[in-house]
Amino acid sequence: MKAAVIGLGSMGSGIAKSLLRAGVETVGYDTDETARQALVASGGTAINELDALPADCDIALVVVVNAEQVEQVLMGPRGAAAHLPAGAVVAVCSTVSPAFARTMAARVEDLGLHYLDAPISGGSARAADGSLTVMASGSPAAFERAQTALDGIASTVHRLSEAAGDGSAYKMINQLLAGVHIVAAAEAMSFGIKNGLDPHALYEVITGSAGNSWMFENRGQHILDGDYTPLSAIDIFVKDLGIVLDTSSQLRFPLPLAAAASQLFTMAASKGWGALDDAAVAKVYEALSDIDLPNGPAR
Amino acid sequence: MKAAVIGLGSMGSGIAKSLLRAGVETVGYDTDETARQALVASGGTAINELDALPADCDIALVVVVNAEQVEQVLMGPRGAAAHLPAGAVVAVCSTVSPAFARTMAARVEDLGLHYLDAPISGGSARAADGSLTVMASGSPAAFERAQTALDGIASTVHRLSEAAGDGSAYKMINQLLAGVHIVAAAEAMSFGIKNGLDPHALYEVITGSAGNSWMFENRGQHILDGDYTPLSAIDIFVKDLGIVLDTSSQLRFPLPLAAAASQLFTMAASKGWGALDDAAVAKVYEALSDIDLPNGPAR
Repeated sequence: MKAAVIGLGSMGSGIAKSLLRAGVETVGYDTDETARQALVASGGTAINELDALPADCDIALVVVVNAEQVEQVLMGPRGAAAHLPAGAVVAVCSTVSPAFARTMAARVEDLGLHYLDAPISGGSARAADGSLTVMASGSPAAFERAQTALDGIASTVHRLSEAAGDGSAYKMINQLLAGVHIVAAAEAMSFGIKNGLDPHALYEVITGSAGNSWMFENRGQHILDGDYTPLSAIDIFVKDLGIVLDTSSQLRFPLPLAAAASQLFTMAASKGWGALDDAAVAKVYEALSDIDLPNGPAR
Repeated sequence: MKAAVIGLGSMGSGIAKSLLRAGVETVGYDTDETARQALVASGGTAINELDALPADCDIALVVVVNAEQVEQVLMGPRGAAAHLPAGAVVAVCSTVSPAFARTMAARVEDLGLHYLDAPISGGSARAADGSLTVMASGSPAAFERAQTALDGIASTVHRLSEAAGDGSAYKMINQLLAGVHIVAAAEAMSFGIKNGLDPHALYEVITGSAGNSWMFENRGQHILDGDYTPLSAIDIFVKDLGIVLDTSSQLRFPLPLAAAASQLFTMAASKGWGALDDAAVAKVYEALSDIDLPNGPAR
């Protein structure tokens, strides 16, 4: 089995490593030389132009930042789609809108390729150790051809339907909840501090109570530590809640909570914190008030 | 040890049973005769006027609906405070604002009584089996005198500070998160259905993903079942998020997410669903769109 990984950022580089570990011959594409060298050091092959793809890839996993980049690396000048053999699978792991996934699937299938709508969840550490969650939809043929690669990168593969767009829709709902819960954690921790509560005691009380969420437990710790080293950045949620709200407008469906959460991430990005960890949305509440978040710089 | 339980609703009746099981002599007050009879059947004593309280109570646990009722049962005509012996503990378990708790504590302490700011979490089932969580603040003397009763009703007693108001502040933050998470669960499930997703598959995907919350897991099941039998009602969150937002106004602290969530509960109450389970906030999204929630009545 031979796989291409298009995009060797924090998720793609881990996916490439997991594929190599699973015995899959792996070629990686990125414009960044450091990323390419890291893949070569792990035993893979690296290319800096997509028309250098080998002619016998079974699957190309697309792990780029957004729909615009997916379009470019697949269908742009010197894009990958023209260099994949008939019957190969294009698995798009990037978070894109369901509508984009449906359109791209039709275009890819017109070229005689299979399309797998395969967004991923789990973060860079789980990408690197092969334990991602994949929320996938596509034809049985696409799943069959992709199976070895999916098994190499994921501990859970949700096989959701045969229709492209569904995988992205499940991911979109997860991002709606994740984004709202991160802002809720920031709002709650900040308001607790404003009320004079001890943030560490608050974290302990909440994580043992009905107010808990996966994100409160995870990102709440970043807020306690005052550590906004980006594991997943503010800008990712500006984008992902943008997909949520674009889709809600197209479907004429109201999402008042997601809309409010989106504005908080936009405020954080507007303050220049787009590249910080998404838990830094708490800094918006700090900037708007007289509270001090834990372990921040002295005023 | 002798305890009074003031208010024998779904929480107070369970608390009274747990006290009796712990060997505490328990007298219960309620205006509702059925509630009083149930306590007598469990081995307690019931009264329908607070001036009938025995003169030797060690502690009165106040488990009524809101601050207005707390005021009334403690300080109103024939209220309990005047009938408790010096040194007894008034433990207010109702969800009230931190400011109200501080004011009431001062008034109670002026009468020679101890005050315990002791909001509870866990629902009626855990009240009845003695496994509530108590988020308590108060003086060491108040905690000491209350300990047997607290041990009888709770599996976790957070002893948060010596200052009345802090217990209620922790509870308020929990309610902020719980309320936002319930609305987020309703918004996400509804939007998933609008996107053509299977709600049961969505529940399975999300409960295994970073988008999960305690409330998504719990109330999401109510939405799947279409069962809005009230375990905790919409009206409770109209009230509790009202406390959150009143406090935010007083402290001049912005809570955009809690404010949005509060409006959704108010919409549900406005539609006449205030007495339904709080998961019925999903019905607002249904009423605003063409989706059908699971297991609803045929249109």
